[in-house]
Amino acid sequence: MEDAGLTTWVDGLGNVHGRLQPPNATKMALLIGSHLDTVVDAGMFDGALGIVSAISAIKVLNVTGRLRHLRHPVEVIAFSDEEGVRFQSTFLGSAAIAGVLPVSTLQIPDKSGLTVQNVLKENLIETTEENLNLLKYEPDSVLGYVEVHIEQGPVLESIGLPLAVVKGIAGQTRLKVTVKGSQGHAGTVPMSMRQDPMVAAAELIVSLERLCKNPQDFITNEASDGHCNAFSLKALSGSLVCTVGEISTWPSASNVIPGQVIFTVDIRAIDDIGREAIIYELSNQMHSICDRRSVSCLMERKHDANAVKCDTGLNSQLQSAAYSAVKRMTGEDIGDVPVLMSGAGHDAMAMSHLTKVGMLFVRCRGGISHSPEEHVLEDDVWAAGLAIQAFLETNL
Amino acid sequence: MEDAGLTTWVDGLGNVHGRLQPPNATKMALLIGSHLDTVVDAGMFDGALGIVSAISAIKVLNVTGRLRHLRHPVEVIAFSDEEGVRFQSTFLGSAAIAGVLPVSTLQIPDKSGLTVQNVLKENLIETTEENLNLLKYEPDSVLGYVEVHIEQGPVLESIGLPLAVVKGIAGQTRLKVTVKGSQGHAGTVPMSMRQDPMVAAAELIVSLERLCKNPQDFITNEASDGHCNAFSLKALSGSLVCTVGEISTWPSASNVIPGQVIFTVDIRAIDDIGREAIIYELSNQMHSICDRRSVSCLMERKHDANAVKCDTGLNSQLQSAAYSAVKRMTGEDIGDVPVLMSGAGHDAMAMSHLTKVGMLFVRCRGGISHSPEEHVLEDDVWAAGLAIQAFLETNL
Repeated sequence: MEDAGLTTWVDGLGNVHGRLQPPNATKMALLIGSHLDTVVDAGMFDGALGIVSAISAIKVLNVTGRLRHLRHPVEVIAFSDEEGVRFQSTFLGSAAIAGVLPVSTLQIPDKSGLTVQNVLKENLIETTEENLNLLKYEPDSVLGYVEVHIEQGPVLESIGLPLAVVKGIAGQTRLKVTVKGSQGHAGTVPMSMRQDPMVAAAELIVSLERLCKNPQDFITNEASDGHCNAFSLKALSGSLVCTVGEISTWPSASNVIPGQVIFTVDIRAIDDIGREAIIYELSNQMHSICDRRSVSCLMERKHDANAVKCDTGLNSQLQSAAYSAVKRMTGEDIGDVPVLMSGAGHDAMAMSHLTKVGMLFVRCRGGISHSPEEHVLEDDVWAAGLAIQAFLETNL
Repeated sequence: MEDAGLTTWVDGLGNVHGRLQPPNATKMALLIGSHLDTVVDAGMFDGALGIVSAISAIKVLNVTGRLRHLRHPVEVIAFSDEEGVRFQSTFLGSAAIAGVLPVSTLQIPDKSGLTVQNVLKENLIETTEENLNLLKYEPDSVLGYVEVHIEQGPVLESIGLPLAVVKGIAGQTRLKVTVKGSQGHAGTVPMSMRQDPMVAAAELIVSLERLCKNPQDFITNEASDGHCNAFSLKALSGSLVCTVGEISTWPSASNVIPGQVIFTVDIRAIDDIGREAIIYELSNQMHSICDRRSVSCLMERKHDANAVKCDTGLNSQLQSAAYSAVKRMTGEDIGDVPVLMSGAGHDAMAMSHLTKVGMLFVRCRGGISHSPEEHVLEDDVWAAGLAIQAFLETNL
């Protein structure tokens, strides 16, 4: 950061800041950031790419002397603890800047009993409930927040383009479904007399996929009659993803018809009302399947987060910047830079509580996130840096 | 046993024998038995009922002076270790009597490292590979084997009768199915781009149920053209049961599309060729589902046991005996005593290698096997004893 001409400091939650204050700039700063931490197997570009591409873009502007002509301050923030691995709570760094981190967070313990406050202190950062609030930025001191992040998905690779603009970050609901039936000996209960929660769960999972692949076949768009629950069915179809990641049977023996099956459902969509409509429909289908099979089903909501919409103004500026970056890299006119939904959470989610946000996605190789195979092409790293450079030159 | 007039001993594998040698009997003995061991939550009647009902029937014949007029010896055997809990190998006692227990069984260790031989020795039974073979009964010394056992299933309760004759013990195949797909972030991979092994597994489980509920919709009976694979589709439909008791995902996180799902399939049927036809059809359906979903599926056979057919002569004698026992208990004419398939394994499976076998099932309350709720009505215990008494009086 210092090499790029930025003034640096570490704040009370371990976020690393690098700020440029051009001589004649207004007080409203553009923030550009992403996270410094990552998770096992997420690859070297998770989080770090967003920080490095911002620094490299600023360095180019510094070296070429264009930095001092910017009309706004620029601040790069490398956020601490976005993943939440140690303290099971996400976006610690960005939520503190946005002013939405509860002060009680400082007392969350890790597995060994050390709290967030303890760990900060070990790293020579003295943070108390009182000075935690000082980390919050004032909304009128901020122009907006921009984040570059790897896509962690297969879409850009499949369409053969390096960059996309992010329309929004999906809202999420996490469900726990418990199906209870009649436990029995695998050999002694005729098929016709079973109340098998495993087969019921399997049917539910197949139905869930059908619903999430083709929501328009199951739910209707109420927009036409001005209903307050109106949402865009098209937008929902494009962004909706549903996943069963965990399942377990009880008592879990190959020769016993289970008495109980529990599985998780992760539902994400860019449209919060649409997501609710899906959950409602899923619940209806569940009760119909479970009634028919004479098993009991319980759906519990374990987690809910609303979607975040990226700013259309920032998005259109990022789209132009990405277009010119790709053109500069390859000489090709790629037409419209694609607009994707983000199914994963990002610091931009926390920062949306402070200011308008915009995001750029960078293509991943292998289309797999959170796996050791995840890599980013070197050219795409350059394209990301060039896009931020173009964005700063054009809009600041 | 001694109270009932039997001469008793414990053999080299811990089986408890009680034998009656009537003065003018032939050398061919009727064996009646079941197991003394049980498993957690199987209830007090599992195994023990078959031993106690035989002893009580013999005691009645002894008290009433009819015992000494039997034309054949009768031997009650309380078999050791039918369940296989400690050494993971079933039917130890009955297999030794039938001469089908491998001598290597003596060296099988339990979890603490103690072998079958060690444990017998702890209980003052010295058994070596050499004298293990002496436990085997000669086929020409045996008239047949009869076993009373609780049904461990819901059929007798549902039809409202206390006793049934067992047509045969189902053959069994245990499969392990591994489905591999593309692991991914639950939020970032669109529904249309997934290769989700969880949904594929769910579809396979639903298909398995459909196939096993209505095999006639999927496979054809080749009997009409004299094909060597001929089997009775009707018999197959009546006896076929298929169960998925265990399932696991990897890496098993609610926000990750699994990379791999493994589940077990337990298939049982009275007809071995029919069971093979089901496995063949299941394999076809699996490959079709997995190909369509672009996931890879592997089906491994982990265990196979052929069906055992009970002797039709013994069965018809047991049927008459059960009929008269119920009539004597209730005064009611129940018509034909039902004939059921046994989906669970029994000592009769091992004994079928030595002699012809016949079995009676006794109704369970709650229809659930291997659960603390399993109980048998007192009247049904009496009916079982009366049936064995009638069987001995009429046929011996």
